[in-house]
Amino acid sequence: MQTRATLLAHARDTLGALRREGRYREFAHLEKLAGRFPVYRWHAPAGLREVTVWSSNDYLGMGSHPAVLAAATRAIAEHGAGAGGTRNISGTSPLIVALEAELASLHGKSGALLFGSGYMANQAALSAVLEALPGFWVFSDAKNHASMIAGMRGAKAAKRVIWTHNDLADLEAKLAAAPPEAPKLIAFESVYSMDGDIAPIAAICDLAERYGAMTYLDEVHAVGLYGETGGGISERDAVAHRVDLIEGTLAKGFGVLGGYVAGEAELVDFIRSVAGGLIFTTALPPAVAGAALESVRVLKRDPARRAALAERAAALKAALDAAGLPRIPGPSHIVPVMVGEAELCRQVARRLLEEHALYATPINYPTVPRGTERLRLCATPFHTDAMIAELVEALKAVLPKRSVPLAAE
Amino acid sequence: MQTRATLLAHARDTLGALRREGRYREFAHLEKLAGRFPVYRWHAPAGLREVTVWSSNDYLGMGSHPAVLAAATRAIAEHGAGAGGTRNISGTSPLIVALEAELASLHGKSGALLFGSGYMANQAALSAVLEALPGFWVFSDAKNHASMIAGMRGAKAAKRVIWTHNDLADLEAKLAAAPPEAPKLIAFESVYSMDGDIAPIAAICDLAERYGAMTYLDEVHAVGLYGETGGGISERDAVAHRVDLIEGTLAKGFGVLGGYVAGEAELVDFIRSVAGGLIFTTALPPAVAGAALESVRVLKRDPARRAALAERAAALKAALDAAGLPRIPGPSHIVPVMVGEAELCRQVARRLLEEHALYATPINYPTVPRGTERLRLCATPFHTDAMIAELVEALKAVLPKRSVPLAAE
Ligand SMILES: Cc1ncc(COP(=O)(O)O)c(C=O)c1O
Ligand SMILES: Cc1ncc(COP(=O)(O)O)c(C=O)c1O
Repeated sequence: MQTRATLLAHARDTLGALRREGRYREFAHLEKLAGRFPVYRWHAPAGLREVTVWSSNDYLGMGSHPAVLAAATRAIAEHGAGAGGTRNISGTSPLIVALEAELASLHGKSGALLFGSGYMANQAALSAVLEALPGFWVFSDAKNHASMIAGMRGAKAAKRVIWTHNDLADLEAKLAAAPPEAPKLIAFESVYSMDGDIAPIAAICDLAERYGAMTYLDEVHAVGLYGETGGGISERDAVAHRVDLIEGTLAKGFGVLGGYVAGEAELVDFIRSVAGGLIFTTALPPAVAGAALESVRVLKRDPARRAALAERAAALKAALDAAGLPRIPGPSHIVPVMVGEAELCRQVARRLLEEHALYATPINYPTVPRGTERLRLCATPFHTDAMIAELVEALKAVLPKRSVPLAAE
Repeated sequence: MQTRATLLAHARDTLGALRREGRYREFAHLEKLAGRFPVYRWHAPAGLREVTVWSSNDYLGMGSHPAVLAAATRAIAEHGAGAGGTRNISGTSPLIVALEAELASLHGKSGALLFGSGYMANQAALSAVLEALPGFWVFSDAKNHASMIAGMRGAKAAKRVIWTHNDLADLEAKLAAAPPEAPKLIAFESVYSMDGDIAPIAAICDLAERYGAMTYLDEVHAVGLYGETGGGISERDAVAHRVDLIEGTLAKGFGVLGGYVAGEAELVDFIRSVAGGLIFTTALPPAVAGAALESVRVLKRDPARRAALAERAAALKAALDAAGLPRIPGPSHIVPVMVGEAELCRQVARRLLEEHALYATPINYPTVPRGTERLRLCATPFHTDAMIAELVEALKAVLPKRSVPLAAE
């Protein structure tokens, strides 16, 4: 077989099918403007245009915080651009060491380990844990993120059981049905990024204790944002000590880049010693570690910023509701607006951008189930009342008049 | 079962075994000093100490290049610290777009795709390609990097055949033994990072053509360093057009962070559209993309820097040989010195650091086979004759007198 020709034909077919289904992703070229967040410069085919971004995961605007930028700039001047090696091959800068200590302390754990991203943290840590003992059963929330699924699938011998999203009865039934002598891990998230709902962590920990299971919690969409010092929902709910491994990112609430797991020092040291995704890749640059460290420290002492986020999210929700727009109800800062069909979703986003200079990402399958395509909005502390009003007017203009069934809050 | 207690006991056992075998990795805390590369500040338990680093993968010192640092600093001031989103969710900065175009051009390809790291690029791209067609056979060089192995393993249905390292006869025999109608991919590296030997790319492409196979080449330890414009060994050997996918890193020769694949635009667009490791993770920060872009551009026009690297590597090899030290012969800039036993290797590295203020990473199993534990040295353009002389004296002092069988050059 001429593999190249066959593969190219397959690539063309796939791309064609994605285009026909309205699922072909075109990445908008968006230039972040540090001083003006959430205003970006859109590099459109027709030229440059200023737009207000409603889909940034820089939830608190920390990516533009002067102290964070100063830390990054200082680290570049002092330590250069890159780490120059893997963690083991001269790449462990003291800034990484300090950041890991800070993250451990953020979650009240004795250890933390930095990865290149939250994706790598999930993938590497879950695989490492699930490969550690024979016969592991992992109980995975049905809405878990692709990176957690990659980590679970990476441990080929582990048995993966999927429980209905946030459904304690289903989780308990599945734990009870598993062999009592099997090692068990419950893997779940705190804030789910596409629906904005929040897991009942304490109740899940209760079940974990009852069935001798460990717990692995992805707090990617919560760290920096929730809890007295930004430790996430597990801090807010005072249950961090009951969760075995807490995973987070430095790229969303903290506004920089990188991911981590925090837990008991010996367990973290074990992951450090065996995880390929940690050992066999260049360490994060000192400037990234330094900026993230500053961001974590600033946010520890800045509950006002978290309060501002909550207030802005509430204002956005109220404005959408007042306008009768099809918001998916939820208790977090993530505010999805239902569209319900892929091509339509893409069109709505395109019209928002082209006609109203507003950027909101269309979220399609496989990120969300078919039929639940949506715009995913996030107000940050920097989105003003005027911006909210502008968005609501634009949504009224571009969203088709139709009723979409929505879940209760 | 109480999973937590069982896992912790397993973690303790594993860490204990690693310690007993001399394979427990302690990451030295090394502070890069931008203006003084390759001199670092070692944060030792006993205090700060200046050391010369001999194991950096910042092969050309680009991590301290003034133009690269200026680009990073400028991007931070203009665009902030982080990307604030995945590629699809507002994270595609124009600097990323420009970098991808530059990388495509570097390899003479019509497309290139940026990932968070070379590890992610290998893992995501190989899995995406091998999952694209049913019944894929992948022919993997026995010394391929862990990230390539992760990518091949990720495509569960693909059949993986391992051929003897750099052995064309074995590769051909294995290609011939596979079903003619199966799609085939040959996956290999150019410069192998632990031995410093180089693959016969043209001859491998000949075999690929003969058997209808595609080629996937990891140039991580070659990009920036070899070829007229830094396009790697495939550029030096004028065979880049014959390789289907070229993978590289921005974290070694280019001195920053990130990884990529380059190839035919439609194939790259296909990978972009299906690879989870691209879609489901935050994009690289504008400052990382900007610094890497500057580095690639500077190195395109700086053959003198590549020549200086070659000259310094030759000087290091000559000095080691003149002193009768057990260097593993090889044609590249990577200069391994054989030790041959894990605990001894660790001791030698420790004494170099503590007694001679020289840092060289001990490389143990599983990175290299047991019995071939080594120090992996790299001279950069910034390692002086005096530094080489100092290293040779120190190695004479700390390496045991014993003859180790070495392969021929
Ligand atoms: C739930 C969840 N976990 C992990 C990640 C990955 O984090 P990162 O962007 O740092 O790779 C994401 C999104 O990117 C996510 O939504
Ligand atoms: C051959 C090879 N490929 C890929 C990688 C991964 O590249 P990166 O450090 O950018 O993740 C490495 C080393 O880190 C490597 O040695």
